[in-house]
Amino acid sequence: MTEKITPRTFKGTRDMLPEDMRVRERIISTIRNIFRLYGFSPLETPAVEHLDILAGKYGDDAEKLLYPLAYKGGKTLALRYDLTVPLARVIAMNPHLTKPFKRYQIQPVWRADNPQLKRGRYREFYQCDVDTVGIEEVIADAEIIALMIDVFKAIEFNDVEVRINSRKILRGMVVGAGLPVDGEQEICRSIDKLEKEGLEAVTNELVDKGFEKDGVDTIKNLLADRITGENALELLRSRLGDNDSLGEGIEEINCILTILTEMNIPEDKAVFDFALARGLDYYTGPIFEVVMPDRPDVGSLAGGGRYDDLVGIFSKNSVPATGTSFGLERIHALIKSGFGSFDHGKNELDVLVCFFDNVFRAECLGLLRQLRLDGISAEMYYRPDKIGKQFNYANKKNIPYVIVYGPDEKAAGEVNLKNMTTGEQKKILIRDIVKYLSLHMKD
Amino acid sequence: MTEKITPRTFKGTRDMLPEDMRVRERIISTIRNIFRLYGFSPLETPAVEHLDILAGKYGDDAEKLLYPLAYKGGKTLALRYDLTVPLARVIAMNPHLTKPFKRYQIQPVWRADNPQLKRGRYREFYQCDVDTVGIEEVIADAEIIALMIDVFKAIEFNDVEVRINSRKILRGMVVGAGLPVDGEQEICRSIDKLEKEGLEAVTNELVDKGFEKDGVDTIKNLLADRITGENALELLRSRLGDNDSLGEGIEEINCILTILTEMNIPEDKAVFDFALARGLDYYTGPIFEVVMPDRPDVGSLAGGGRYDDLVGIFSKNSVPATGTSFGLERIHALIKSGFGSFDHGKNELDVLVCFFDNVFRAECLGLLRQLRLDGISAEMYYRPDKIGKQFNYANKKNIPYVIVYGPDEKAAGEVNLKNMTTGEQKKILIRDIVKYLSLHMKD
Repeated sequence: MTEKITPRTFKGTRDMLPEDMRVRERIISTIRNIFRLYGFSPLETPAVEHLDILAGKYGDDAEKLLYPLAYKGGKTLALRYDLTVPLARVIAMNPHLTKPFKRYQIQPVWRADNPQLKRGRYREFYQCDVDTVGIEEVIADAEIIALMIDVFKAIEFNDVEVRINSRKILRGMVVGAGLPVDGEQEICRSIDKLEKEGLEAVTNELVDKGFEKDGVDTIKNLLADRITGENALELLRSRLGDNDSLGEGIEEINCILTILTEMNIPEDKAVFDFALARGLDYYTGPIFEVVMPDRPDVGSLAGGGRYDDLVGIFSKNSVPATGTSFGLERIHALIKSGFGSFDHGKNELDVLVCFFDNVFRAECLGLLRQLRLDGISAEMYYRPDKIGKQFNYANKKNIPYVIVYGPDEKAAGEVNLKNMTTGEQKKILIRDIVKYLSLHMKD
Repeated sequence: MTEKITPRTFKGTRDMLPEDMRVRERIISTIRNIFRLYGFSPLETPAVEHLDILAGKYGDDAEKLLYPLAYKGGKTLALRYDLTVPLARVIAMNPHLTKPFKRYQIQPVWRADNPQLKRGRYREFYQCDVDTVGIEEVIADAEIIALMIDVFKAIEFNDVEVRINSRKILRGMVVGAGLPVDGEQEICRSIDKLEKEGLEAVTNELVDKGFEKDGVDTIKNLLADRITGENALELLRSRLGDNDSLGEGIEEINCILTILTEMNIPEDKAVFDFALARGLDYYTGPIFEVVMPDRPDVGSLAGGGRYDDLVGIFSKNSVPATGTSFGLERIHALIKSGFGSFDHGKNELDVLVCFFDNVFRAECLGLLRQLRLDGISAEMYYRPDKIGKQFNYANKKNIPYVIVYGPDEKAAGEVNLKNMTTGEQKKILIRDIVKYLSLHMKD
């Protein structure tokens, strides 16, 4: 144990120091509170899964990002890639769970990606998912959308909107454009890059993938016109001609928008957007994504959709499901950078009790303990140092109050309380400290 | 995606279903609250670390349990084995952190162990650590002990005690028994098995390890007499003769016990126990462990100690540190099995709003949303089914209240509220629901 090792983290992973953790924990508890109001229950699954549970679920590009775990020579394990496939496994293994099963899950996932730290792409990051499993009715999708709106309201991101589309509409588009219906996933993966890479790149990629030029042009024209908002659904039908997929998709989007209105969700908060495709293969119906229209640079803050076939891969029967994932890391980074007005939270410590001297240690420790028993977060300086040094420590740690308690104060039945923000110093009766601090800590 | 995969978890890992998660989250938030009262700040570190950061820190037996991660052909990464070595790395990488740095950390760790599920030994489990870094004074150790006592009080484990010893005393014993001082770690690892394997097995192992019979017998006699409690320290000195290590160890234990008394910790809550050794190599001073004297079968519920040399392995200078780890999994399992009186927590959902019919859907959805906005956790049944079926769903999910709201109720400005526990049904004015539920949910 004598050789010096250079302390470092694996690229793409991060330590979360207290300053980061405080605001992060506040964000998570705020989001979790909304999940609970909507009746979602907590779930956790292991970080390590059998490789065959995860393989073949995410599409070819994503598949390469699985982290295999070397165990006893073999590589039959992998780190959790997302929270959706583990949910599907849980559902299959626990048929006793009452449906609809509504769960939230907030845990890290791992991707063997090229980390781009400046763009917030990490190898280890948290996902924060809510899903409703077991019902086909789009009321479940509408509820997920309402929940997304309430979550962003709760964390004080006011200028967000939910963009909504349906994979059925996109399939209807593929059919209407005369392209093969089994090309849907490939086409959606390309359209998903629209925001990032632009229309030309997307359509070129489609041609490169071997899709017929005429059909690709039909899609290109539709995307170029950016069909969104009111009447968009009917416009789409008139331009593409009718087909079953398109009709079903339009009907479910109409139904979702109606339910949202009935839930008193403001109309401008949830809008149909034909260009929304979502990159993952497993979506089957409505898809949704939260964006800030004024900040296209930020990208998507949450996204999800219906995936009626995925949960069934481990089950005897098909199990419908819908849900969303919140971009916790992106939200945290935005708040950290000063965006919005969400309260960053304060230091854990309310009070530093000065270590007066060794003779008086017992009295100071007794006071310390009483403060803690009364719910005041407090610590005592660790040695009977100069008072100035102890005050300095309180300043460095952003501790808002310092108590000096010595023989004179004891005789008078009071403490000397210094407000480190204002510099104000006052004598307070011992029996009144807790009341005083409780009152002033709320400021 | 058509081949059926058998859904299963990796042996030694578990899903935490909502019922488990609810009580687990309550335990964690209760413990976290005590950490905060004591002024400890949250920290998280990555699951994946460079192998050389973890290697060579835990002793030979533990070393074998590291999970290597296969990445780009090499095995230079491993999963986090505990939370202490990552803390040491964080301290070395962040010299700006004000000392004492007091942090808590609640995250899973991974060990390539033979899982013994019945005995609660898993390959993936949570650790829950608090540590104070940067001060040598034993007031920090005493504070950790006081915190342990308060944590178990908060989770209503009343019959626990903290056993305290010092590695310096054990080193003094090695010296006093005429055994080589560098045998301390080997000897401690053997004594650590005393509770589990008995005195004979421990002393036989020491002889097998090559320690001289006479010296081992001295230790055996001391352990046989189970020297604990008052006067134990002086008794130990008189039987072993004096040496520097023993003297220092006795002094620090005396000092800790005095501070605990000054903190008004009841004397029977923290006792000196000469037979406490702790298995890990890195302890250098006071060590402590929480047990239930009436339940030796349960084993240790929390344990830790001072490790002044570990943090320094990544730093230029030695960095003193002390802390403890709570056996969260064991605590959770005990509470789950019915031990103690800690509240297991209730279902997330307060209210099910019945789906009356499609015509009246908007009114029911409006009511649902209002409940949520008012802080009542509510969901609406997902289709306009028979009321009996909807009540049945509420029963299966343990939802305490069901609201039926139809045209008649709307006309009267009230709802029909059924208490699913008592069966009682009553009409309540819409404007009074929130007040009524808030009042009754507290019962």
